[in-house]
Amino acid sequence: MVIKPTRRHRNSHNQRRRVKPGTPPGTIAPDPNAQATKIRVMAYSPAAIHETDIQNVDQLKPLLQHWPVTWIDVTGLGTAQTIQELGQLFQLHPLAMEDVVNVHQRAKLETYTDHLFIVSRMCNPEDDVRTEQISLFLRQGVLLTFQERPGDCWNPVRERLRQARGRIRNSSVDYLAYTLMDAIVDSYFPMVDSLSDRLDQLDDEVTARADNSQMHRVHDLRGQLLALRRAIRPHREMINELTREDVALISPETRVFFRDCYDHVIQVIDLVDTYRELTADVRDFYMSSVSNRMNEIMKVLTIIATIFMPLSFIAGVYGMNFNPNIPWNMPELNLPFGYPLALLAMVATALAFLWYFKRKGWIFTN
Amino acid sequence: MVIKPTRRHRNSHNQRRRVKPGTPPGTIAPDPNAQATKIRVMAYSPAAIHETDIQNVDQLKPLLQHWPVTWIDVTGLGTAQTIQELGQLFQLHPLAMEDVVNVHQRAKLETYTDHLFIVSRMCNPEDDVRTEQISLFLRQGVLLTFQERPGDCWNPVRERLRQARGRIRNSSVDYLAYTLMDAIVDSYFPMVDSLSDRLDQLDDEVTARADNSQMHRVHDLRGQLLALRRAIRPHREMINELTREDVALISPETRVFFRDCYDHVIQVIDLVDTYRELTADVRDFYMSSVSNRMNEIMKVLTIIATIFMPLSFIAGVYGMNFNPNIPWNMPELNLPFGYPLALLAMVATALAFLWYFKRKGWIFTN
Amino acid sequence: MVIKPTRRHRNSHNQRRRVKPGTPPGTIAPDPNAQATKIRVMAYSPAAIHETDIQNVDQLKPLLQHWPVTWIDVTGLGTAQTIQELGQLFQLHPLAMEDVVNVHQRAKLETYTDHLFIVSRMCNPEDDVRTEQISLFLRQGVLLTFQERPGDCWNPVRERLRQARGRIRNSSVDYLAYTLMDAIVDSYFPMVDSLSDRLDQLDDEVTARADNSQMHRVHDLRGQLLALRRAIRPHREMINELTREDVALISPETRVFFRDCYDHVIQVIDLVDTYRELTADVRDFYMSSVSNRMNEIMKVLTIIATIFMPLSFIAGVYGMNFNPNIPWNMPELNLPFGYPLALLAMVATALAFLWYFKRKGWIFTN
Amino acid sequence: MVIKPTRRHRNSHNQRRRVKPGTPPGTIAPDPNAQATKIRVMAYSPAAIHETDIQNVDQLKPLLQHWPVTWIDVTGLGTAQTIQELGQLFQLHPLAMEDVVNVHQRAKLETYTDHLFIVSRMCNPEDDVRTEQISLFLRQGVLLTFQERPGDCWNPVRERLRQARGRIRNSSVDYLAYTLMDAIVDSYFPMVDSLSDRLDQLDDEVTARADNSQMHRVHDLRGQLLALRRAIRPHREMINELTREDVALISPETRVFFRDCYDHVIQVIDLVDTYRELTADVRDFYMSSVSNRMNEIMKVLTIIATIFMPLSFIAGVYGMNFNPNIPWNMPELNLPFGYPLALLAMVATALAFLWYFKRKGWIFTN
Amino acid sequence: MVIKPTRRHRNSHNQRRRVKPGTPPGTIAPDPNAQATKIRVMAYSPAAIHETDIQNVDQLKPLLQHWPVTWIDVTGLGTAQTIQELGQLFQLHPLAMEDVVNVHQRAKLETYTDHLFIVSRMCNPEDDVRTEQISLFLRQGVLLTFQERPGDCWNPVRERLRQARGRIRNSSVDYLAYTLMDAIVDSYFPMVDSLSDRLDQLDDEVTARADNSQMHRVHDLRGQLLALRRAIRPHREMINELTREDVALISPETRVFFRDCYDHVIQVIDLVDTYRELTADVRDFYMSSVSNRMNEIMKVLTIIATIFMPLSFIAGVYGMNFNPNIPWNMPELNLPFGYPLALLAMVATALAFLWYFKRKGWIFTN
Repeated sequence: MVIKPTRRHRNSHNQRRRVKPGTPPGTIAPDPNAQATKIRVMAYSPAAIHETDIQNVDQLKPLLQHWPVTWIDVTGLGTAQTIQELGQLFQLHPLAMEDVVNVHQRAKLETYTDHLFIVSRMCNPEDDVRTEQISLFLRQGVLLTFQERPGDCWNPVRERLRQARGRIRNSSVDYLAYTLMDAIVDSYFPMVDSLSDRLDQLDDEVTARADNSQMHRVHDLRGQLLALRRAIRPHREMINELTREDVALISPETRVFFRDCYDHVIQVIDLVDTYRELTADVRDFYMSSVSNRMNEIMKVLTIIATIFMPLSFIAGVYGMNFNPNIPWNMPELNLPFGYPLALLAMVATALAFLWYFKRKGWIFTN
Repeated sequence: MVIKPTRRHRNSHNQRRRVKPGTPPGTIAPDPNAQATKIRVMAYSPAAIHETDIQNVDQLKPLLQHWPVTWIDVTGLGTAQTIQELGQLFQLHPLAMEDVVNVHQRAKLETYTDHLFIVSRMCNPEDDVRTEQISLFLRQGVLLTFQERPGDCWNPVRERLRQARGRIRNSSVDYLAYTLMDAIVDSYFPMVDSLSDRLDQLDDEVTARADNSQMHRVHDLRGQLLALRRAIRPHREMINELTREDVALISPETRVFFRDCYDHVIQVIDLVDTYRELTADVRDFYMSSVSNRMNEIMKVLTIIATIFMPLSFIAGVYGMNFNPNIPWNMPELNLPFGYPLALLAMVATALAFLWYFKRKGWIFTN
Repeated sequence: MVIKPTRRHRNSHNQRRRVKPGTPPGTIAPDPNAQATKIRVMAYSPAAIHETDIQNVDQLKPLLQHWPVTWIDVTGLGTAQTIQELGQLFQLHPLAMEDVVNVHQRAKLETYTDHLFIVSRMCNPEDDVRTEQISLFLRQGVLLTFQERPGDCWNPVRERLRQARGRIRNSSVDYLAYTLMDAIVDSYFPMVDSLSDRLDQLDDEVTARADNSQMHRVHDLRGQLLALRRAIRPHREMINELTREDVALISPETRVFFRDCYDHVIQVIDLVDTYRELTADVRDFYMSSVSNRMNEIMKVLTIIATIFMPLSFIAGVYGMNFNPNIPWNMPELNLPFGYPLALLAMVATALAFLWYFKRKGWIFTN
Repeated sequence: MVIKPTRRHRNSHNQRRRVKPGTPPGTIAPDPNAQATKIRVMAYSPAAIHETDIQNVDQLKPLLQHWPVTWIDVTGLGTAQTIQELGQLFQLHPLAMEDVVNVHQRAKLETYTDHLFIVSRMCNPEDDVRTEQISLFLRQGVLLTFQERPGDCWNPVRERLRQARGRIRNSSVDYLAYTLMDAIVDSYFPMVDSLSDRLDQLDDEVTARADNSQMHRVHDLRGQLLALRRAIRPHREMINELTREDVALISPETRVFFRDCYDHVIQVIDLVDTYRELTADVRDFYMSSVSNRMNEIMKVLTIIATIFMPLSFIAGVYGMNFNPNIPWNMPELNLPFGYPLALLAMVATALAFLWYFKRKGWIFTN
Repeated sequence: MVIKPTRRHRNSHNQRRRVKPGTPPGTIAPDPNAQATKIRVMAYSPAAIHETDIQNVDQLKPLLQHWPVTWIDVTGLGTAQTIQELGQLFQLHPLAMEDVVNVHQRAKLETYTDHLFIVSRMCNPEDDVRTEQISLFLRQGVLLTFQERPGDCWNPVRERLRQARGRIRNSSVDYLAYTLMDAIVDSYFPMVDSLSDRLDQLDDEVTARADNSQMHRVHDLRGQLLALRRAIRPHREMINELTREDVALISPETRVFFRDCYDHVIQVIDLVDTYRELTADVRDFYMSSVSNRMNEIMKVLTIIATIFMPLSFIAGVYGMNFNPNIPWNMPELNLPFGYPLALLAMVATALAFLWYFKRKGWIFTN
């Protein structure tokens, strides 16, 4: 198993603000590395659907007048002018437009007189820790979405629109907004499942045998779960606000669907919190396994040292060169059976220690 | 004692969503492994009871008209068509029907204009960690329950219905709903008791002698308690909502009973939280026992090494082969009583170290 | 000091429910081991007091009519019939009666139209961890109390009643209820004091010298504090509800007294929480002492081994049997002063290591 | 640095209740060790001040009638009769009077119809952990304060009264109450500063070199911070209540001052909580330093043992006494250059191990 | 990398109160080390701007009458008289003026009848842990700011005023207040980014190789994050209060901007909390790496000792000097091939231990 580099998820904790301090609020200053802005429009009525890429913001006006629901899907935040023109066309608040291009926002809902501004964060299955900021503006008949990069979790929604499956083509724009938010929230489940699989495998491995790389992986998992928690947690309050009765742009029928979406957010948060607790448990288990291993190693060392040190000492005594001709000096050396007796003494000493260790429960136990 | 495999409870943290992302909301897509759907009906009045298995949803209509209370008990969520027909017959919300078959929901209450939708999770004594999702729809005169598998904790309720024990046959359908919820909540007690027994035994074993397998079991217990907490905790809010006065379908008399049920939920949560704290205490105790053991092992090693190393050194010195004929070279070897004096020096050294260890409190103390 | 067996307090976390699952709610099924029920009545007016043991519930009626305040003190929950008759006499709710005999309840207050039902838990000085459930029914002019066993903390109250000390005989029944609740809450103080004494002693012992039994006792104390916290904590909300203005049976004068009682509960909870934090501190301190001890042991081992291993090696070299007659073979053995020089080399080596250890700060420091 | 005895602060967690269980509420039973009660009166108007010690409660009446503001400062709680007479003179509630002499109360505010009862705890700079209970009764024109012992933090206030500095003499009695409360809250700052100094010094010492006494001091500091937190925390709610608009005895002008006092309480709590987190950090840092030390010791031991054990073994081999006259028996002993070659082999072995340790990074690194 | 001295950030936890206890409230007693007070005025209308340094508070009056918005920027809190005159000119509350010079306040908002008093704390990029207190008084048409030292984060704002960029010159004084508060909150981001960089580097280093200095740095980082959290956290409530509708001096348009500022505060708090959790993770990871290293060291020691101790013992046995002429005494020494057989026995012993270690998984594994 390849261990994920830890640097990626750490950076995800702090998408740096690029706004130069002191810039007047509401300035749209895209990240110089941001991708060029592309606009794709899906406009539909129960009977028909029109899908087109547009180059110029002015092309939008006829579409808006003709179709009951228009979804303007903006990808790439690099072209300041296009974004500014969109903001002016729909009379969006400059602070909201600034938040669109500063892709470090927490999920939030802001209510303006004639539109809602929703910031959310999407999980990208290909980038397992950085989440992508999605901004939505919901107005009567128009949904404007901004995403950082091409590639999102909305293709099934687009397919449903094209094939007129379910009630989506017959519903108004707030139902489309719900459908997209639901897809965003559901994009967390595959990520959480993948972390869960890695955690399960890690738990099995630690149970089988603790080794050094596991601690790296626990550390890594904890960092990723922390990043995920930071991304998903603000959605709770945001979607909860959307289910309140005083939000004018959300119809009562759609409100029921947002309540379901809220349940999913709670479920993701609950899973992420549970997994963070589980990683803590795995870490504690790992530490105790390491302690146990150390204990076992020390036991082997102690047993060997404790048996052989006295034996070596006895051997050492009879290796001394005291002059045997002087009385009292090492008479054992000339004893008949001196050598076998010495060996016997050694065996007895070793057996005594073994008996002591057995009584202590250090050996011959499981 | 067999150690439970840890994989089972870990999986229980995340019953995976099977809904393909992008599916329109309200689609009923049962798990392909789900059991075929069976319907059992108990319809009763104070005077009589009628119990039958039905094959066809149409058979329900005459029963509903005839009996004041009908309990439609659906087991197995594998037959999408039957479930869909039930939803249409009672005009249930598609999102609720979707939740019925996606058996990963947290406990919750949803209020619709003419019915309540309750999701709950039952503890199965035979499957000690996975909980089973139970969905209930409560309408005037009808209670519709969905469970994943045959086998539940409701047989005593059925028996009371048949024998007309207590007030159950004389009460309306909300009392039946209470009785079933009460049985579900009470199904947690045997599980909690069994975990408590295992925790007690573990505590006793750790107190007697810490060994490696105990840490596995603490780790396992903690995982199971976490899973149990996730299952029971959302019941608190759900049942609390049922005791509020503005729930039209619950009569004031039954509300008192739900308050009692609420007390039981609080009690289960309190026990689970207490046991999780206790497992943390046991784990800390285990770790300190391991540390103490290590200390003891190190003490033995140190005592032996510290005594025998100097002794071996003395023996080594007198085993050197310096030519004794050269003056100043090892005159001790030719001393009268040299050997006994050397042995005496050794004994004195050993005693000196023993005295030092005794003063340090390393030996001859408890 | 005798170490308390840990089994007792652990069991106290889970007084097992004896109700067979599926029993109709409100069934009075006393624990088969419960003591036989005895009823003692104290009825009083400002002028007189009448104290009697009664055998039959019917004997109560004349007393109730005659005396302004009657305290019916029921001890032992083993006689189902007597308890049932009391419930019927005072028209108590069956669920409340069921709670009376299932002695595993958390403290709570339940308000019925004409009576209050209070569940509380009393600390028994003779049983240092299990708390005893006390149930009180407060009606106009009547206080009904149920306790599990003979022996309680109410004898001083009885004495005050008999001797008409203080305002108790001149007050109505709610003041009697307060007096009893106050005695129950105050029964926690001696227990908390005793745990505090044990904690103080433990802290002193750990400070003096960490040994293995202390960890057992910390573990034990933590378990007891957890049990105590579980018992006292629900009293906070319960007594707080009693001080609210909308409780009809409590007069405004008595409400002031309940506020004082509430302060005592807060104080007990505060002490128990503080002691749990202190035990955690003691445990951490213990663990660090054990680590320090280990360090000291390892230092001794390392110093001895590091000094004597090189010395023994030198001695070993000069114990080799190379043929001294072959040139270049061990000429030192025939050197004049070879032996003293070898000894000097050994002393120098030892001093070098001692100097190294001193520089490292391992020896000759406190 | 003298290490403070730990017993003192531990006792401060539990000022034991001396009330005999069962005593009627409102009984004034002073601690037998309490000091005799002394009364000092400061009565003032904007124009004049009258300061006197009185012996008899009756002497108060003329003063109360003459002066617009009277501060009755009672020191020592040992004379039950005097305290009782004061309570009767001002018609104070018996429960409040009982709290005055039971000096174990948490800070609180109680509102009676014509007076406020405030309990607070003062930090005594001479007694660094036990706090002293201060009780205040605030009535129209009269402030009654009770303290346990002579010596308090109010001398600067008295001086300001005598010298008519600031607005104190021109303000009514609620401003005096604020001034005293402010002095009490500010009495915590020197204590917190002293603990902060000790913590800073400890942190520096641990950074320089971890030794065993530091852990004692961390443990001690944690206990003292816990005691301080218990004392100050209830002041938050108490003073917050004093700033509410519905407290009749506090004028709107003085309310602004109490808001400032509230800010100070928040600041003390914030500091105490921060220091408790810092002590935890210092403890973790200490533990890691100890672990690191152990690692270093083990490394030295391992290096020495690993180098000298093989060397001693080689020396031991050539010290064997196999009969060199038998062929194949230790021909090395008779080799020319056998001895230098053996020494060379030893040096090579030692170098090999040193190279291994260097590669492992155990030596020649910082 | 230079390790920051820990003393600096620790002191920042407790900016000591310099007010002598007992001083009447509202006394302006600047810190004797405070810098002399300088006043710089920027007065502007949409059409023009006037910037000047003034020496005398009286010079302000004509400016205030002439210009619609006047920003009086006071730097240095050392000249008590100037500050007092400013307070009198604008009729500011004495307690607020006292807070201005006691630079240890937590961020807060106080509402007076005709002005707001805001206390905030600014992050100084040159002083990486101490934050500087900024006090703002907002009145109709006048903004009065006090800072401790020259140097702040407001130069871009001044530049925007001079160049009339954005809407700042066309807006009223509340927008200026917002702009300054926004700059203060944004001053935390560079600090947080720098701590994040240090944390990332530390994480990488610990992952590569745990060494002793890292623990110092983790300890240091934790202290700085704690200090930062203390500084920023009270801003949440303060700015939240500014966004409420009942604050008269903030216009609805500016309120939207303060909501944006509130989002930034939440983001800083979220980052600081996340980093504190991450430092805890890094610390745990460090500790586990140290444990693993210890394990590895112990393994090497044990392997070497366990192999060579038995070998040395065998060599020691054959080095004994038992008289070979006595029968049974060491006949091996005279055996043909005795020496090679002994060597073979040694090799066999060593191989046996190596096999044992391999089976244990101690060697020849990753």
